[in-house]
Amino acid sequence: MPKQPVIGVMGGAAVTETVFDQACELGQRIAGQGWILLNGGRNAGVMLASAKGAKEKKGVTIGILPGADKTKANPYIDIAIATNMADARNLINVLSSDVIIACPGSAGTLSEIALALKNNRRVIALNFPLSPPLSGFAEKNLLYHATTPKQCIDLCKKILKTKF
Amino acid sequence: MPKQPVIGVMGGAAVTETVFDQACELGQRIAGQGWILLNGGRNAGVMLASAKGAKEKKGVTIGILPGADKTKANPYIDIAIATNMADARNLINVLSSDVIIACPGSAGTLSEIALALKNNRRVIALNFPLSPPLSGFAEKNLLYHATTPKQCIDLCKKILKTKF
Amino acid sequence: MPKQPVIGVMGGAAVTETVFDQACELGQRIAGQGWILLNGGRNAGVMLASAKGAKEKKGVTIGILPGADKTKANPYIDIAIATNMADARNLINVLSSDVIIACPGSAGTLSEIALALKNNRRVIALNFPLSPPLSGFAEKNLLYHATTPKQCIDLCKKILKTKF
Amino acid sequence: MPKQPVIGVMGGAAVTETVFDQACELGQRIAGQGWILLNGGRNAGVMLASAKGAKEKKGVTIGILPGADKTKANPYIDIAIATNMADARNLINVLSSDVIIACPGSAGTLSEIALALKNNRRVIALNFPLSPPLSGFAEKNLLYHATTPKQCIDLCKKILKTKF
Repeated sequence: MPKQPVIGVMGGAAVTETVFDQACELGQRIAGQGWILLNGGRNAGVMLASAKGAKEKKGVTIGILPGADKTKANPYIDIAIATNMADARNLINVLSSDVIIACPGSAGTLSEIALALKNNRRVIALNFPLSPPLSGFAEKNLLYHATTPKQCIDLCKKILKTKF
Repeated sequence: MPKQPVIGVMGGAAVTETVFDQACELGQRIAGQGWILLNGGRNAGVMLASAKGAKEKKGVTIGILPGADKTKANPYIDIAIATNMADARNLINVLSSDVIIACPGSAGTLSEIALALKNNRRVIALNFPLSPPLSGFAEKNLLYHATTPKQCIDLCKKILKTKF
Repeated sequence: MPKQPVIGVMGGAAVTETVFDQACELGQRIAGQGWILLNGGRNAGVMLASAKGAKEKKGVTIGILPGADKTKANPYIDIAIATNMADARNLINVLSSDVIIACPGSAGTLSEIALALKNNRRVIALNFPLSPPLSGFAEKNLLYHATTPKQCIDLCKKILKTKF
Repeated sequence: MPKQPVIGVMGGAAVTETVFDQACELGQRIAGQGWILLNGGRNAGVMLASAKGAKEKKGVTIGILPGADKTKANPYIDIAIATNMADARNLINVLSSDVIIACPGSAGTLSEIALALKNNRRVIALNFPLSPPLSGFAEKNLLYHATTPKQCIDLCKKILKTKF
């Protein structure tokens, strides 16, 4: 397995069908590039959808679980990392990703965006409008906005060029 | 030392003089109630100001540090908890507080608000306007807004009545 | 509350009556010195006994909990820190203590001794025989042995002289 | 990439040439079975040696780093997980492994063995003699001993039969 960029896909555990479908397409497109998908690993919402999409395109998937039991990962996760650190694992999700794509979600997803930006990680918000103080990170070239999975991939390519 | 409510005060490490002064007043008022102040313990911004205020009124102060070295706590911290877990300690800050007051700050403070609300902790935003998805937690009686330290104390009293 | 040394007392959750009684005496003696007691906060074994002893002598007690719920602390804990990080909180226990006293325990206690020594914290093993690689830390003046709570206090005084 | 067992290899950052060579052989043999190697990811000792060995046999390697910077992983790590949680990441190392093999090391390695056994994970100690309370876990079929990498692999196969 050659070394590949790791794209973190964050987003809610309870989402609309539209968001679920976009997360699935995102996973497909990430795998289509040969990139590794990383998410929170649970069997719900954006975590499930993005991993499912990635495996449909034979990608590699990593799930960083909040609990201690690897078998709780959704069936599309290849490598489950069990932390038993609850939401503290959100920090690991973003630090371990070369680019973070944030699909719509609630407070958990917002904590991941905030932790990513605080730690100078690049975040692409997919149909996720942000306000101050987070919106200000766009000027520092840390925060980007997209409305489709395809746009996310194009932005990832641009960002990764500066790293790989 | 009798058991007392713990009020977590979050907020930026780099803040304006106005925010610094309000955080200091907040610390004074928390100590004035006999409550314990908890914050991130560093020697800067809201962490420094709120602990300084609390000690001026002979309160008890706890600092949850991101690093391993207790001597890095600001001089107004009575009890320093050294985590060496960087921003993962933000989760500890909010889980250990009976009420969280969020003074203006940047991404770090926003991560604490988000982690608190996700974990059903009560948050009072002091001059800190919030947007969706966080603003929606007001309807669940988890998020409150205030414009002065005095209002924060009044809200704390109301919230603590349901707990102590 | 003036700043005081923090003595961490580690040890098993399931212990003999003899160990329970010694942990209780240890808590009494720590409080008798005006020092703060820190432990893992749970309602069992050495955590319960040492906090009970400390409160009998009107000491201050801190409990670093593995879970998210402060109300799970034993009734003798004044200040409960809720981590929700399971055994990862063992690192916080030892980093936050000026001296660590290890009462008999099992794998959890041993992980705390090991994490303490790796991080250059002073450990007093109370009736807890240790083998290599841990026993080697005695030569580095990081590991001490005692057979009574009183000896532990005398060793603490000697160690704290170099810090306070 | 089909789902594969994850074998965690722990051990010192500063080791003898003999230990380094055994860790390297261990990595080769783990990869030879098609299993995934997981370790602490740093560029030293057993972490470096076992990853190097695994890549020589075209295995997949995961490194759980103590810091925030993925580029600090050794060059033989395919997937670097950045935690920024210092030694608290030791818990993640063992919870994420189906079997843990402990090569000789110091206090850090011992903390991993202890955390693994406390969490009911299977540990194979490779030329690492253990005393009470850890040695008692042999009777619970959680702790095994081996003197060669080949023996470790045979024990892994036996243990994995009960899981995969």
